Amino acid sequence: MNTPEDVSGVSEEQSMQLVTAIKDYQLTHGNLIKWVQSEGVTRVPSVGVGVSALPTPFPRSLFDEAWQLQASMNELYVRIASDEDWLYGVLKPLFDHDDFLAALWDVHVTVKTAGVAQDIVCGIFRSDYMLHQPSTRESVSLKQVEVNTLCVAGACHAERVAGMHRHLQRKRDVRKPAEEQGAERLPVNDNIEQLVITLCKAHDAYTASPFVQRCVLMIVQAHNFNVADERPIEYGLWDSGIPCYRCEWQEVLQRTTLTASRKLLYRVNEAGVQAELEVSVVYYRAGYTADEYTEHEGRETRLRLELSCAIKCPDVLTHLTTFKAVQQALTEEGAVERFLSADDAHRVRATFMPIVKVDKVAEGQLFREIATDPRQASHFVLKPNLEGGGNNVYGTKIPDFLASIPDEQWSKYILMRLIVPPGDTSGVLMMMEELYEGPVISELGVLGSVVWKKEEGSEVEVVRNVAAGWTFKTKPSHVDEMNVVKGYGCFDCPKLAA
Amino acid sequence: MNTPEDVSGVSEEQSMQLVTAIKDYQLTHGNLIKWVQSEGVTRVPSVGVGVSALPTPFPRSLFDEAWQLQASMNELYVRIASDEDWLYGVLKPLFDHDDFLAALWDVHVTVKTAGVAQDIVCGIFRSDYMLHQPSTRESVSLKQVEVNTLCVAGACHAERVAGMHRHLQRKRDVRKPAEEQGAERLPVNDNIEQLVITLCKAHDAYTASPFVQRCVLMIVQAHNFNVADERPIEYGLWDSGIPCYRCEWQEVLQRTTLTASRKLLYRVNEAGVQAELEVSVVYYRAGYTADEYTEHEGRETRLRLELSCAIKCPDVLTHLTTFKAVQQALTEEGAVERFLSADDAHRVRATFMPIVKVDKVAEGQLFREIATDPRQASHFVLKPNLEGGGNNVYGTKIPDFLASIPDEQWSKYILMRLIVPPGDTSGVLMMMEELYEGPVISELGVLGSVVWKKEEGSEVEVVRNVAAGWTFKTKPSHVDEMNVVKGYGCFDCPKLAA
Repeated sequence: MNTPEDVSGVSEEQSMQLVTAIKDYQLTHGNLIKWVQSEGVTRVPSVGVGVSALPTPFPRSLFDEAWQLQASMNELYVRIASDEDWLYGVLKPLFDHDDFLAALWDVHVTVKTAGVAQDIVCGIFRSDYMLHQPSTRESVSLKQVEVNTLCVAGACHAERVAGMHRHLQRKRDVRKPAEEQGAERLPVNDNIEQLVITLCKAHDAYTASPFVQRCVLMIVQAHNFNVADERPIEYGLWDSGIPCYRCEWQEVLQRTTLTASRKLLYRVNEAGVQAELEVSVVYYRAGYTADEYTEHEGRETRLRLELSCAIKCPDVLTHLTTFKAVQQALTEEGAVERFLSADDAHRVRATFMPIVKVDKVAEGQLFREIATDPRQASHFVLKPNLEGGGNNVYGTKIPDFLASIPDEQWSKYILMRLIVPPGDTSGVLMMMEELYEGPVISELGVLGSVVWKKEEGSEVEVVRNVAAGWTFKTKPSHVDEMNVVKGYGCFDCPKLAA
Repeated sequence: MNTPEDVSGVSEEQSMQLVTAIKDYQLTHGNLIKWVQSEGVTRVPSVGVGVSALPTPFPRSLFDEAWQLQASMNELYVRIASDEDWLYGVLKPLFDHDDFLAALWDVHVTVKTAGVAQDIVCGIFRSDYMLHQPSTRESVSLKQVEVNTLCVAGACHAERVAGMHRHLQRKRDVRKPAEEQGAERLPVNDNIEQLVITLCKAHDAYTASPFVQRCVLMIVQAHNFNVADERPIEYGLWDSGIPCYRCEWQEVLQRTTLTASRKLLYRVNEAGVQAELEVSVVYYRAGYTADEYTEHEGRETRLRLELSCAIKCPDVLTHLTTFKAVQQALTEEGAVERFLSADDAHRVRATFMPIVKVDKVAEGQLFREIATDPRQASHFVLKPNLEGGGNNVYGTKIPDFLASIPDEQWSKYILMRLIVPPGDTSGVLMMMEELYEGPVISELGVLGSVVWKKEEGSEVEVVRNVAAGWTFKTKPSHVDEMNVVKGYGCFDCPKLAA
């Protein structure tokens, strides 16, 4: 059993001391969820986000592999976002059944028709992986769960939890000689600084009118319980001398103006200051759910932002790469190879699980087979084409679910072969109501930071392309979903081992 | 009216935006109170501590005066704590009526009899001031409310709130030219680092056995809702490479051992580590209330810590200087002059308000007069001799209160002439349930950091003596008490003005 070494023989008293130390660390470091439903005028309660009580073992070589893959992963998605034809080919079949996707594509077409006002694009991506070992005879490998190319969340919480585990580790190491100390097994995390640097680079790349004050505009959802994962980036930008304002998605139309030269102006209306600033970077932390794209205001909101010459993080074409249909299309022969060198393509492809979709004849056949046979279905997860998660259907539940919806809706889903994590990893998790100790499954996310310039055709000049940090989440093995802020799973820190 | 300049003409929408920004800043910076009564195994809710929404004006010259006074104030209390005869003379008359005081003195006597094992003492003090202007014809001066010489709280919250106001200020200044920006009117606050440095200095001054791991032991109260004011100091010590452990007052006897050579050993019993460390510094954040000194365990707890050769922050004699009887005695002729140079004594004495006590014949007469005449009483506050606050009786309520207790209890109190703050300062405060805007009164605390060595007789060698930071609290003028964590008043930041 691959166990966090320090848990064995922990007494009740010791574990209470540990969880108290953790709760206090979370409280003093803003590793918290805001109880927006209990918000008063002057006070709002908050509570710790789910975290592991001990770091969970993870193979160092595979952590390093994921990290080293990120530059290729970044490049892959940048190139997809620049290859309109390929992307159109992948997404077009879905437009009839997916209003959201169609609306986003419309935004792209409208912007293109108007002429692209900004050729620089910024991306903060995250590629998620799990460990895969279908049988004990095989070695453990890294398999990709999904790629997120907008509204990437969890970076701030991940940094706090990494800091917390480093603190707890140095306490455990207090009497150990240097060579036995565990801190170096916990990878450093400076996500917040890295994301701030990314936005700074984009901000600096924006050519403003002379003497005009620029700002980064963070587009956020109203009443967000997860502000602790957004605010630190805002503070970091101010610390770097760059004004950053939060603008709620619903207020964009009212608070911004698109000038004739397509500059985006933001009207600050805060106590003590009324001013109009030129937006250098639109940083999306909203606009990723279908229900934000209401017929008029919602679509107009995205359109205004995209039409502007502000640098988007990311633009709508890059947003469109985050759909599962793209992930599926990349599994097809030659797809990755279209965008990357043979070597890079090979390394990236090695992390893919097979994905089946309904709308090709042969695969449609296979999809139908799997969809109606619980035995076959047990090896798959059914994922909605839309980015996000939280609406997956697992294994044997798939046939009943697909039977419950009209056949023409099937194309909104892909079937991905389930990753089979090693069954021998144990962890200690502070779940919502209880301390869980038992078998666990972890998910490693590697953050990517990219700034690129679109050129003729589908060419790009990549100005910046680095791995910018990591997130790590762990859940009890018997729980299907991994969504920490909603109570499934916990933020965690890998304990790297040979 | 002395108004935070930015509040005028603030719309409802703007003030909501401001309080939201503040609530989120508090949440992400641990400027919070823990709801210990709702604590679960894995989660504990917390809520923001009371803070001002805008920094409150304060005269720069008086802020500077208080800062510059601190070295003298530190020296005064160090010298009192070293002058056992003088202190005995002041406190002895109270022993019969005050078990707590008598118990503390007993601890001192027992330690003295055993022989002092450690001649180095550490102090973290705080001298509190209010502005005084009895009539508009007189200029505003600085008057001392009290001095705290142990368990000084509020330093961490003060730093967070100062940081918050700097952040909000730079947002207000976004379009202002450098010379009009307000940030330099908000004094810098690095309380936490300064307190950590203080404890590091003490730690370094402790001579440990060779090859033995030392630690700072923070003695804390159980179930403290105000951990956010303690934990950052612990983290700061670890960051400085010094192990720091929290030990609850009730667990000291069980978790520590006093060796034959009077070393204090602390048994760490946490997940993953069982070890015994030598305590270099005992840092008290508990042991300041009478009810902690239970007949056997409570007194034995303090005695064990004081008998040890750990450096105490502070030792029991220094603790004894924090009582109001000492503050009163210092107002008597020649008292301050006994300890400080004429110049320093003059400057310190200028901040004193008249204090009347019951146990001297002439003053006893005066005490009785005031105590029975509401008109005279209206100019006084009745304070229990014990450190702390929260049990003061104000003005016209004094006669009825004194009539309700036996005469022999009167000696537990002093009568201090009320400081009369200027009536023209207005502020905006986020009280428990509502946003208050109106006349306010502020209290400035200056932190002192001292390390000294006791020498022959009442001589001392002061190794370190600096002003180490500040706290600033503001309350609506109509509220008598100032106790932020209990919901009276708010942490604030002075906006320094000529």
